[in-house]
Amino acid sequence: MPYDNANPFARILRGELPSIRLAEDEHSLAIMDIMPQADGHALIIPKAACEQLYDLPDAALIGAARMTRRIAVAVRAALRPDGLFIGQFNGAAAGQTVPHVHFHVIPRWKGSELRMHAREAAPAERLQEIAQRIRAQLEGPAPGTAAA
Amino acid sequence: MPYDNANPFARILRGELPSIRLAEDEHSLAIMDIMPQADGHALIIPKAACEQLYDLPDAALIGAARMTRRIAVAVRAALRPDGLFIGQFNGAAAGQTVPHVHFHVIPRWKGSELRMHAREAAPAERLQEIAQRIRAQLEGPAPGTAAA
Repeated sequence: MPYDNANPFARILRGELPSIRLAEDEHSLAIMDIMPQADGHALIIPKAACEQLYDLPDAALIGAARMTRRIAVAVRAALRPDGLFIGQFNGAAAGQTVPHVHFHVIPRWKGSELRMHAREAAPAERLQEIAQRIRAQLEGPAPGTAAA
Repeated sequence: MPYDNANPFARILRGELPSIRLAEDEHSLAIMDIMPQADGHALIIPKAACEQLYDLPDAALIGAARMTRRIAVAVRAALRPDGLFIGQFNGAAAGQTVPHVHFHVIPRWKGSELRMHAREAAPAERLQEIAQRIRAQLEGPAPGTAAA
């Protein structure tokens, strides 16, 4: 199946749909998931037009891996969860709901189950407040990308 | 907490414990999970002595991301699942059971739930048979690492 240029993440990358942005570089955009499975649930979206991990070009893969680590570090610092889950779903049978490759960063707290994926939107002001706390942790240089 | 040099993945990397190997390069080892959540469940273990994603050095991160994509491509070709899940768990609250950073590659089939994580060992001959099918798909050059 060819890549669907009208998918929501393609539209967010083109600025046609709004998003709550955390960070951006040449290769990736990091945003808040608006239907979070836990507080602080973030998404890393490679800019490459690519549906699944199998076909992600090398530079896009490396950029997304670095951005995922960077966002994980910031989410941990901002929210102090007990754990943190990274997930990447290929195909509807694996839970993929948007046909553009993306990585989930989901904080976990002891004794707290994840909410269902992509089921219920969180209040915008709650998402903005958490995003602000995560962005405050992103102000140093990105790991792995600082000049030597 | 300092890195525990006696954890099972450190021991597998040193050859002190057996494993069913899929692929190895300078940065990572890919093996079968012996308590698989689904047939074809593989693990990518960075060689860096590192407990969680936050602290994974850049070269190890890039190497693990490339190996994860390579194994995902091979698992898809070998087993033709309906989907494929990549997971990476930091901290017991997120499901981490071995204190050495690792990435799960888990095939998904429609209508089939995942088995519980790290609960029941699969028969060795079944694991070996699946590993052989995955290895047969790995014989071409690794994507992103072939000479230009």
